[in-house]
Amino acid sequence: MSLPKGFVSGSVAAGLKSSGALDLTIIQNLGPSNFGTAVYTTNKVLAAPVIWSRQVTKGEAVSAAILNSGGANACTGPQGFADTHKSAELVAKKLNISSGEVVVCSTGLIGEFLPMEKIETGINQINLSESGFEASAKAIMTTDSVPKMASTVSKGATFSGIAKGAGMLAPAMATMLSVVMTDAEVEPTDAQSAFNRAVELTYNRIDSDGCTSTNDTVLFMASGASGVKISGTDLLDVLTEVCGSLSAQLIADAEGSSKTVAIKVVNAASEDDAVNVGRANARNNLLKCAIFGGDPNWGRVLAATGTAKASFDPLNVDVKLNGIQVCKASTPAEDRNLVNFENRLVEIEINLNAGTSSATILTNDLTHDYVHENSAYAT
Amino acid sequence: MSLPKGFVSGSVAAGLKSSGALDLTIIQNLGPSNFGTAVYTTNKVLAAPVIWSRQVTKGEAVSAAILNSGGANACTGPQGFADTHKSAELVAKKLNISSGEVVVCSTGLIGEFLPMEKIETGINQINLSESGFEASAKAIMTTDSVPKMASTVSKGATFSGIAKGAGMLAPAMATMLSVVMTDAEVEPTDAQSAFNRAVELTYNRIDSDGCTSTNDTVLFMASGASGVKISGTDLLDVLTEVCGSLSAQLIADAEGSSKTVAIKVVNAASEDDAVNVGRANARNNLLKCAIFGGDPNWGRVLAATGTAKASFDPLNVDVKLNGIQVCKASTPAEDRNLVNFENRLVEIEINLNAGTSSATILTNDLTHDYVHENSAYAT
Repeated sequence: MSLPKGFVSGSVAAGLKSSGALDLTIIQNLGPSNFGTAVYTTNKVLAAPVIWSRQVTKGEAVSAAILNSGGANACTGPQGFADTHKSAELVAKKLNISSGEVVVCSTGLIGEFLPMEKIETGINQINLSESGFEASAKAIMTTDSVPKMASTVSKGATFSGIAKGAGMLAPAMATMLSVVMTDAEVEPTDAQSAFNRAVELTYNRIDSDGCTSTNDTVLFMASGASGVKISGTDLLDVLTEVCGSLSAQLIADAEGSSKTVAIKVVNAASEDDAVNVGRANARNNLLKCAIFGGDPNWGRVLAATGTAKASFDPLNVDVKLNGIQVCKASTPAEDRNLVNFENRLVEIEINLNAGTSSATILTNDLTHDYVHENSAYAT
Repeated sequence: MSLPKGFVSGSVAAGLKSSGALDLTIIQNLGPSNFGTAVYTTNKVLAAPVIWSRQVTKGEAVSAAILNSGGANACTGPQGFADTHKSAELVAKKLNISSGEVVVCSTGLIGEFLPMEKIETGINQINLSESGFEASAKAIMTTDSVPKMASTVSKGATFSGIAKGAGMLAPAMATMLSVVMTDAEVEPTDAQSAFNRAVELTYNRIDSDGCTSTNDTVLFMASGASGVKISGTDLLDVLTEVCGSLSAQLIADAEGSSKTVAIKVVNAASEDDAVNVGRANARNNLLKCAIFGGDPNWGRVLAATGTAKASFDPLNVDVKLNGIQVCKASTPAEDRNLVNFENRLVEIEINLNAGTSSATILTNDLTHDYVHENSAYAT
């Protein structure tokens, strides 16, 4: 996998991570187009880089992005914003572009200032090249165990993306950073609309632990360097493919997880209802613990479903666990002990018998390792 | 502690629990008054006993309650409702009262039918007496490690209550059953209003794991046998005292918990805002894991607060952790390493600087033991 035409990137171990791993990366769009748009966290408490980058992407012109792990620069006040601004200025100077076209993304511990000397040194050390894709994916990792990358070709144009995020992972957004790049030529209004919908269908349908972060940013940049025009449903499809792959990789690597759980809600009265029921189940700790234990406790599915904002008859819900119809019309059906939990993937199908809409939410189980990882993050 | 005047109760090990412990209890109000009111779960998926009891308490006349552990009788359809009805009939026949004045409560695994032969035998074996209080508290325990009881005297009238519930414990309601009894003389409209508010201030402000059950019932019965009239704020105060004590006991015994966490939200624009912010923190798994690990990661408080439905300036939130002002105006203040986590009680004060309202939500940490207990409940 590699960067689309028109993109270069470079990464460095700037010393933000105590491990000495890569922690700072710059991605540059050399054009000819520099279209950029992004979707941000819905959290009211916004990290400094989100406040900065929202202004940048309003102009739909993004020439570069700088991303760091090892510090979120959130809850850092005016000093934190000044630090973000300075990072953008340093990148702009290095690349001879406007700082108003530099998106900044940070991830890591909240409530600590970034070591700006290390960042400045790191920015100066970075060498950008066409072969920097995998290193950029590695530089944004936090508790991720593997880098997340996806790439596909549509009609001769390449779409490639990276992502990080393994905890505090919930719509909208997840704890995550993601950059999706293409060398296709896109039309701004069409591209923004397609990207928003693709994010809605992918990143906003994974929910690892119900916790929404202060730093989430999903950035889309198009260079137009391939000369291939892509628009409409073609663009939506390819963006959904790339973002869908990255989303699934995030859940597959969710903090401490032992199971990936696909919660498929069918025959809902509306897509919103289906999503709401899926999320209510994805956030139910008791259900997530049961799945960790291989316990076919479908009553917890019904109890979670009953808390969701959705229209359905509570006496007429059907549930399948890994294909076994354990519940029919909200009462016991096939023997729950027939459910096989051997595979990592667990499929829960919830039939609301209330309409024709459906949605699938991806989540993971709640495990001892999740508790362990998250009880010792700052210390 | 004992039953108020006018009440008798009796309990038996009917064999619903495999442990052979007490699992079935009847509480009777001998009067002269038989006022009763209740607050039920907000879950759309309602257990059969909740559907039955809601009809009973509409009449505000409750002469007896039968409560069982060892089976929730939820998601059991028409058969489950028939079983609940039969339990009420058996109690009515035994006590020579109307089945329409018998509240039924069940708790345990969802999606299994109750063994009605054992329940019928149990009902016949029960002997009611004035000294049955503690046994009744024990008979409703599920994963509780200790029975929960509270009793107080106000102006010569006794108020006594029992409760169970250690998981699936969230407003509104918690996974819990509770019966509060008094020998005071109360006026129905006043008593219903005072009880609803007392429940709002106590049971609805504990949130162990964010999971709302199908069976929650908090029943209040008044016999009038003391001849003492209690009303208005006096009644609210004493009900809040008893329900507050029982609520705190539930959190202190929450499944697998090692810490009780009091989330005090102050200077909110409204009481609803304060409650919403408190609950958002109480349901944040990352924060709950951090507290388990003794990690003063206040960034997770800000991140959770930013997801709550509440009006405040995200750049002007203050946080104290066990008295240490770790965050001032949404930025780092005192050294987070000064926070001492030695005691079971952890106090988080969130100052929204947005008004004059406040509320405290009680929760607990998320631990290895929670995961363990809840990954092996049905099996």
